[in-house]
Amino acid sequence: MHEHPIYLDHNATAPLLPEVVDAMVPYLREHFGNPSSAHVYGRQAKAAVDQARARVAVLLGAAAEELFFVAHGTEANNLAIRGVLAALPEKRHVVTCVTEHPATTEPCRQREKQGGQVTWLPVDGEGRIRVSEAVAALRSDTALVTLMHANNETGVLQPIAEVAREARARGVLLHTDAAQSVGKLPVSVEGLGVDLLTVVGHKFGAPKGVGALYVRKGTPVRPVLLGAGHERGLRPGTENVASIVGLGVACEVALRTVETEAARVRGLRDELWERLRARVPGLALNGHPVERLPNTLNVRFPGVSGSALLTATPEVAASTGSACHAGEESASSIITAMGVEPSAALGSVRLSLGRMTTQPDVVAAAEALAAAWKRLARG
Amino acid sequence: MHEHPIYLDHNATAPLLPEVVDAMVPYLREHFGNPSSAHVYGRQAKAAVDQARARVAVLLGAAAEELFFVAHGTEANNLAIRGVLAALPEKRHVVTCVTEHPATTEPCRQREKQGGQVTWLPVDGEGRIRVSEAVAALRSDTALVTLMHANNETGVLQPIAEVAREARARGVLLHTDAAQSVGKLPVSVEGLGVDLLTVVGHKFGAPKGVGALYVRKGTPVRPVLLGAGHERGLRPGTENVASIVGLGVACEVALRTVETEAARVRGLRDELWERLRARVPGLALNGHPVERLPNTLNVRFPGVSGSALLTATPEVAASTGSACHAGEESASSIITAMGVEPSAALGSVRLSLGRMTTQPDVVAAAEALAAAWKRLARG
Repeated sequence: MHEHPIYLDHNATAPLLPEVVDAMVPYLREHFGNPSSAHVYGRQAKAAVDQARARVAVLLGAAAEELFFVAHGTEANNLAIRGVLAALPEKRHVVTCVTEHPATTEPCRQREKQGGQVTWLPVDGEGRIRVSEAVAALRSDTALVTLMHANNETGVLQPIAEVAREARARGVLLHTDAAQSVGKLPVSVEGLGVDLLTVVGHKFGAPKGVGALYVRKGTPVRPVLLGAGHERGLRPGTENVASIVGLGVACEVALRTVETEAARVRGLRDELWERLRARVPGLALNGHPVERLPNTLNVRFPGVSGSALLTATPEVAASTGSACHAGEESASSIITAMGVEPSAALGSVRLSLGRMTTQPDVVAAAEALAAAWKRLARG
Repeated sequence: MHEHPIYLDHNATAPLLPEVVDAMVPYLREHFGNPSSAHVYGRQAKAAVDQARARVAVLLGAAAEELFFVAHGTEANNLAIRGVLAALPEKRHVVTCVTEHPATTEPCRQREKQGGQVTWLPVDGEGRIRVSEAVAALRSDTALVTLMHANNETGVLQPIAEVAREARARGVLLHTDAAQSVGKLPVSVEGLGVDLLTVVGHKFGAPKGVGALYVRKGTPVRPVLLGAGHERGLRPGTENVASIVGLGVACEVALRTVETEAARVRGLRDELWERLRARVPGLALNGHPVERLPNTLNVRFPGVSGSALLTATPEVAASTGSACHAGEESASSIITAMGVEPSAALGSVRLSLGRMTTQPDVVAAAEALAAAWKRLARG
């Protein structure tokens, strides 16, 4: 038994940054106020939330008042998609993609059930949509294009900026689920040209249970949860102060370190790929070779199932599909959408690196996975 | 300036219990896994969530599989009310009360806008609904009765068990928002006879950002947020592990201490009332003298506004309305619903005690409030 296997599952969740925990603990132990209270305990909590909001905004190149705290990525995507659709009832059409997360596909399916129309863009063999197909899908009654920035399983980056430019020229709003990219790559709302953007804390060193939605000033959006007037009327519920503080610190750290850390992790990720490829003949890459998160390596091992391989490799903690769907032994719909046969797709393993990953980890993980593959493939 | 005024605003939010923070920190620092992951990091996180679920269940006398974790009370109430209404589309009628929290009234108002019907029960001079009126409101197309267990401003307890018995006899579901009562009083889902019950962590020593909804086995309810299959399909989003652990510990502490602590706080609360009443002629109680949370004292000071009084009493941190609506200088609708004139209602102050409240606090708070009242009322 390996009690502390090498953790290569950062796309499922990342360890909290020590400076994030350090910043949170005082808001758990001492500064317990409710930001809505007028007294000093409340004002102290409100100031902390305001500071965190400013930090998230700076990381994204946004204004603080364009950021709204939520509990998680699913809530942010629900608020973006359903919130815009509720605000634009006369527009019945949405454009999205077949490889989105359930937090996007389920609100889109709900829209279909309620009489709306959804265009589900396909992806090419490298997991990317074609900009021309996205543009061709835009209609006069299109309310929203919602496309993830980086795919959770493959790390493939979608051409958000190009689609956003065309959408904006036609008066169509664009939302991107940047759950996997914020904190792993420099992400700018102006660089992408998006109207709404989902941030998820626990993917880059903040705690679980906090996220944010960027909403460009003037974008029509209605609340999804109904209650009191928190978050300027867009999201009711007492603010999760300590976790919001943690998200702010994670953004502050990302602002300073994301570029150097991305380069470091990219180097390790590419070394992992080279080491595995040298030992596993027929190993294939799932996703685009370049337009991809620097930390993500999704590979297909020939002749074995990914879950059997991981079971046979207790030295490594990784996953076969997104964590949300773990436990199922069916081929990933994200991999098969790229044209991979289901039987081959079953050999896929997602290896996602992070701040805690070292070069010796990469050497050991490659050895362990290759050795396990040889045992299984021979057997 | 008082940097640490006496905190009498526990109904807005309560300090975290030290044992709650102690239990959370390892899940922030070390055990960072995603409960959906199949590897050891994930299994460890899942075990922690399972243990917490069992602890919440034991406190309420429920089964673990009847509890679903959410982010906050607003989400729990939305899930209970909108979730049941979505599951019973042929039933268009809801019964609620005029003194509910916006997390309840707003979902009810949405139902009205969508063509449903809502009966808004009035309250008597002591803040309670009449059981006979609730029963008379039940119809063959009533989907749900939703009534808060204890009011956030006055602490008044509604006759949930009596209404639930009558509702159940007619096949109508009953939801109670127990945000203010769980952890302050023994609360049992069987004792109350409810089908759904809202738990809010930060009201009794758990962190902000976590709550739970009890759903009696077999109760029809549909998810409000749409995404992956977390929480057995009822509530998507990566589980907020550390905060869920904290909620579990707060429930475990409440199970052991709620009765003795309720008696202790009740004694202090009653002493505060006697001390204030002796110094402030014309002071009036808002709410029922007995059927009330043990920690809550909502009083009307004659001839002053409550917010002016609190501003003049920097030694005490309290509020005039619920924290969610602080900042407004209009009379509380909860107080005026009890038949109090708006001009008199403006003199109301909510004093809510908790685990950190001591007898010297009560003496000092009564002195400070009475002295400030005398200065203002003379002026």
